[in-house]
Amino acid sequence: MDARHAILFEPVRIGPKTLPNRFYQVPHASGFGSARPKTQAAFRAIKAEGGWGGVCVEYAPVSPDSDETPPIAADIWDERDARALGLSAAAIHAHGALAGLELYHGGSSSPNGGSRAVRVAPSQLTSERQWGGLAKEMDAGDIARLQREWVRAARQAADAGFDIIYVYGAHGYLMTQFLSPHTNRRTDGYGGSLANRGRFWMETLTAVREAVGGDCAIATRIALHGDSGVPGAETLPGIHTDDMLKLVTMADDLVDLWDVTVGSWPEDSGTSRYYPEGHQRPWAHRVREATAKPVVAVGRYTSPDLMAEVIRSGAVDLIGSARQAIADPFLPRKIAEGRLDEIRECTGSNLCIFREETFNHVGCVQNATAGEEYRRGWHPEIFAPAAGPDRPVLIVGAGPAGMECAVVLGKRGFTAVHVVEAEPEIGGKLRWARRLPTLGDWGRIIDWRAIQLARLPGVQVITGRRLAAADVLDYGAELVVIATGSEWRGDGVQPGHPDPMPGADPGLPHVLTPEQACAGKRPPGPRVVVYDADGYYVAPGVAEMLAAEGFEVSVVTPFSVLSPVSDQTLEGDMLRAHLHRAGVSVHHGTTITGVSPGSVTGHDRHDEPWSAVCDGIVLVTQQASQDALYTELAGDPEALAAAGIAGLYRIGDALAPRMISEAIFDGHRLAREIDAEDPAQPAPYRRERAELG
Amino acid sequence: MDARHAILFEPVRIGPKTLPNRFYQVPHASGFGSARPKTQAAFRAIKAEGGWGGVCVEYAPVSPDSDETPPIAADIWDERDARALGLSAAAIHAHGALAGLELYHGGSSSPNGGSRAVRVAPSQLTSERQWGGLAKEMDAGDIARLQREWVRAARQAADAGFDIIYVYGAHGYLMTQFLSPHTNRRTDGYGGSLANRGRFWMETLTAVREAVGGDCAIATRIALHGDSGVPGAETLPGIHTDDMLKLVTMADDLVDLWDVTVGSWPEDSGTSRYYPEGHQRPWAHRVREATAKPVVAVGRYTSPDLMAEVIRSGAVDLIGSARQAIADPFLPRKIAEGRLDEIRECTGSNLCIFREETFNHVGCVQNATAGEEYRRGWHPEIFAPAAGPDRPVLIVGAGPAGMECAVVLGKRGFTAVHVVEAEPEIGGKLRWARRLPTLGDWGRIIDWRAIQLARLPGVQVITGRRLAAADVLDYGAELVVIATGSEWRGDGVQPGHPDPMPGADPGLPHVLTPEQACAGKRPPGPRVVVYDADGYYVAPGVAEMLAAEGFEVSVVTPFSVLSPVSDQTLEGDMLRAHLHRAGVSVHHGTTITGVSPGSVTGHDRHDEPWSAVCDGIVLVTQQASQDALYTELAGDPEALAAAGIAGLYRIGDALAPRMISEAIFDGHRLAREIDAEDPAQPAPYRRERAELG
Repeated sequence: MDARHAILFEPVRIGPKTLPNRFYQVPHASGFGSARPKTQAAFRAIKAEGGWGGVCVEYAPVSPDSDETPPIAADIWDERDARALGLSAAAIHAHGALAGLELYHGGSSSPNGGSRAVRVAPSQLTSERQWGGLAKEMDAGDIARLQREWVRAARQAADAGFDIIYVYGAHGYLMTQFLSPHTNRRTDGYGGSLANRGRFWMETLTAVREAVGGDCAIATRIALHGDSGVPGAETLPGIHTDDMLKLVTMADDLVDLWDVTVGSWPEDSGTSRYYPEGHQRPWAHRVREATAKPVVAVGRYTSPDLMAEVIRSGAVDLIGSARQAIADPFLPRKIAEGRLDEIRECTGSNLCIFREETFNHVGCVQNATAGEEYRRGWHPEIFAPAAGPDRPVLIVGAGPAGMECAVVLGKRGFTAVHVVEAEPEIGGKLRWARRLPTLGDWGRIIDWRAIQLARLPGVQVITGRRLAAADVLDYGAELVVIATGSEWRGDGVQPGHPDPMPGADPGLPHVLTPEQACAGKRPPGPRVVVYDADGYYVAPGVAEMLAAEGFEVSVVTPFSVLSPVSDQTLEGDMLRAHLHRAGVSVHHGTTITGVSPGSVTGHDRHDEPWSAVCDGIVLVTQQASQDALYTELAGDPEALAAAGIAGLYRIGDALAPRMISEAIFDGHRLAREIDAEDPAQPAPYRRERAELG
Repeated sequence: MDARHAILFEPVRIGPKTLPNRFYQVPHASGFGSARPKTQAAFRAIKAEGGWGGVCVEYAPVSPDSDETPPIAADIWDERDARALGLSAAAIHAHGALAGLELYHGGSSSPNGGSRAVRVAPSQLTSERQWGGLAKEMDAGDIARLQREWVRAARQAADAGFDIIYVYGAHGYLMTQFLSPHTNRRTDGYGGSLANRGRFWMETLTAVREAVGGDCAIATRIALHGDSGVPGAETLPGIHTDDMLKLVTMADDLVDLWDVTVGSWPEDSGTSRYYPEGHQRPWAHRVREATAKPVVAVGRYTSPDLMAEVIRSGAVDLIGSARQAIADPFLPRKIAEGRLDEIRECTGSNLCIFREETFNHVGCVQNATAGEEYRRGWHPEIFAPAAGPDRPVLIVGAGPAGMECAVVLGKRGFTAVHVVEAEPEIGGKLRWARRLPTLGDWGRIIDWRAIQLARLPGVQVITGRRLAAADVLDYGAELVVIATGSEWRGDGVQPGHPDPMPGADPGLPHVLTPEQACAGKRPPGPRVVVYDADGYYVAPGVAEMLAAEGFEVSVVTPFSVLSPVSDQTLEGDMLRAHLHRAGVSVHHGTTITGVSPGSVTGHDRHDEPWSAVCDGIVLVTQQASQDALYTELAGDPEALAAAGIAGLYRIGDALAPRMISEAIFDGHRLAREIDAEDPAQPAPYRRERAELG
């Protein structure tokens, strides 16, 4: 270990418990909840195994009027729920870490889709998060009832083995709804003055402490107002930082660990596009000065040097992590062992949050094993030795899928894996995506794999060599994996329009694909339409790039908002503000169906004709697999047999263009299952089932 | 039974099985799938008990590359899944009905959020339904594999007890993707000609028939193109009706039951706003003429006379139902017993589909017990006798919650329930909502309850009497239920803006609440802004009403589309087309923050100032519980005790303004649980849990 990092491995006392080191996986959603207890336990245990001294399960609603359905939360409504969650506590303990449970109530943000309970909140205001009804203004009975539930849940969690019990007070949920005068309009003892608005939280902390304070550390998560100055970032309305710090001081005797969040969720979980590593640090430091107790804060920390420096500065006592702990559960052990260049750094792209926002279980663009520990038995650092590791393997294409497949085959002990890439660099579509404005950190996907590939003795990377089918047949490989990726179509085919768009021909000077734009092709005049039928990062990225060069850019899109997918990575508002400031105009609800030199035509959301004058168009319409090589090879089984090729597979975008995370998952899976009877078809995965008896 | 209806009770032979009558619950989603097998079984069994001769479970994906996650489908990926679903077959059989399972593959529409499998489809085109990636173009191996899975699933379903096995070919899913040249661009034997495009479907039918045709009836669901002429309705692109009828004739020997759907899902499950009862009838009739086999089609049929007439006309052999069977599982028995005015008619408001589209389990605005058969042990027609039924009950307010509560208390045997309503009519907010353009059938919520209330000997309804707190105390009731509803705020408070809007005062001539608009108040000039911060039916309804009177109406809304909630009831496109034709303009992404005589001001989506000239504004911003009566009573426990009031409760919008379905659910629940220790708090409900062992 580097001596500079030793400070990270000091134990930290929190109330009656001691964390073995300063690495702390803060509560974050997994999609497993208490409904999938074994999947949850395996997902959390791997972090303890990787060296995180504290590992928390996600938000645990204490009562059915905080029902998160459709997302799956760690409901702890009764003793059976607590027992299910106890599997996680036991699995975390098995590796010497402390286990935390974040007792939670969503207040007016609770969907209550499963329970159909009425929402409750300090005042009857519409939730900005949930359509479907207003909340009941909590009466004295509701306040007492929820405090009883919190205590009951705390007791059951302690009995189930948890060491750290939260009173979740952040992110705009019930506690914050009480604290903020924006959402607390009460005129009784729970509203008005700061002390009154803090009363529900203080009373709950007191009651929980009385119930389990002797056995467990009491943590609370708080939200500071935040004000990063990032355009489009919301702060948390209503609670000024100075007020929150007063509350911290007031409650300090009741709390063993302060878990600090900053601003709204899109700010707190800010992506690498708009926030640097450690951006919450100044706010955490202010909390540090207001309390005598340990403080943890996140910050998308990936650098051990910065982590150690932040601890030394006194800003925090623990390095909180959600995203980085997903990307690399073994980060602490890698630091401890000085294997710094093995750390799989979080890209800050919020694919994990995209999965959560689309109501799926956790996933990670960097770490294909995240969430698959129980389901598929995948370990992020342990790879089953392959049967027949001396079989020569040829992987054609070093994009995300090809790189990942090669790394995993290498780790499984294959001795002769050749990755042959036609371009002079590896990386596939990431080669140009990482160069789009604000997307630089996405390049970490390439960087980590490049280091691994260079280090694996059985893997050789050859760039600048484009293989034809005959070359593949002659290569001498026994297993061939085609990972030739995808390209953006230049013909204007788009969702709902399977036929090419008249006039769409990327051979013309005024028609561009995104790849052409990134490679330097420019339209013959200053007015550019970027047509976005895709909805994620490509069109805004190209638009921003061209606007920065002085083009008059307008994005035209059939969607009702620009880049709706970015809302699910928490980037939408910032991205739209960013482009607005850059002078990019947007036409929503508009479909382009024809291109001519000097203009584009189409229709608006009411099917009325629409047209615009422009000097060129970038078509971000639809991708197509580059699968000609695969198709040619697969079409000639005799030739394959004659060449000694026993297995021919296709992964990543060459199979079907998808998000980068899915291409990596694909390459990873094939490498894990290359010894299966039919490696092309995913093996069944374990699903937790309801009792039938 | 009315002799005219006897035809509905004739048995119908389908392949090797015989349906006991012509009532057929077609496959429809429940949100229970194979993951919640006991909840599913109880939900389906109640329909068999109510007299439906055929009862189907929902769509059952045959393989992990048709994974519907996040929604829960009836996955039948292995034998354990089949056993879970078998609980439903057994429960349906217990009441003498046949059980059906709709084997399914979503093709390019499969989210695959849980399995993370690549999507498959006949051609690599973007799904219009699912963001997140293109499909793999199926190769010969995929075709054979999915047919094997279909056969395997069919065999396991038959072994689990199902009588009717589907090859689902409708609604734009995999079979339809093959049939339509819009989505099938193949150049092999599965693309091109009609026979080629039908090959995958025909081969699958053949294989399934070979596997289980001796034991089970083989059904297939098909989609006809449809063309209702309703503005905004999509037809199903690509397959002309004549072609589909040729396919029907080609496949007729392979099929025992044709299940006919029409157009896209929003057309097929058309709401009462835009489609009359039986609107699919002409298309079903055309299928009837192309086949020798029985035909079933839906049509939101609620009238027994029309059902009998449709059978007699030969258009169909079976009355298919999804929504009506949810609204009243006992419809067949009520017809058989001549209890026609007991039928709880479907409102056609698609609350059931709203629940599905928001990834929740089934619900129904008319039938609060739907989906609660296992969870809460609720039966739609059987009500546990109350403890102490002679306790006098006063319900204040005869809106949805109050009406429902009174009906259930009456059915539980209460002998002295008084429902006192201040207005001259019962119905609450539905009194005016049902008079908004196109919303007439929503009035069925009142109508069914009015009939029940008139019939229950223990319930008396008193209208036109407004009770003050003193009146309630003097009333002589032992149990008091406050159901005084909600009102739209006239002060402009809206999501994210908890303070009143400057200038928003409904006492002024140019400021209107929706209730005022419905009661006849009109602005002093022709230019009206309807400001919609709500997003559902109220603002479009008021806008349409005013436009029809000649006002120049524009809807201003912070949402990116008009009435986003209507997309989840499948009405959005039609509603927007409807208002566009009515000359209503829409300003999206715009927040109004101030009102003056002659203008409104606010900001656009980039926080830039915005204003408009107008003569008046209708504020559809936020509702408020009318809870003054409850608050006054609850604030004086001594007075309650002195008056002999042992229980004081609050239900419906008086508790918290929500969708009408939730108000009804609330009133129903309180009446079911009025004998509980704390009736105000919902009793725990049964949840199916994962195995821990």
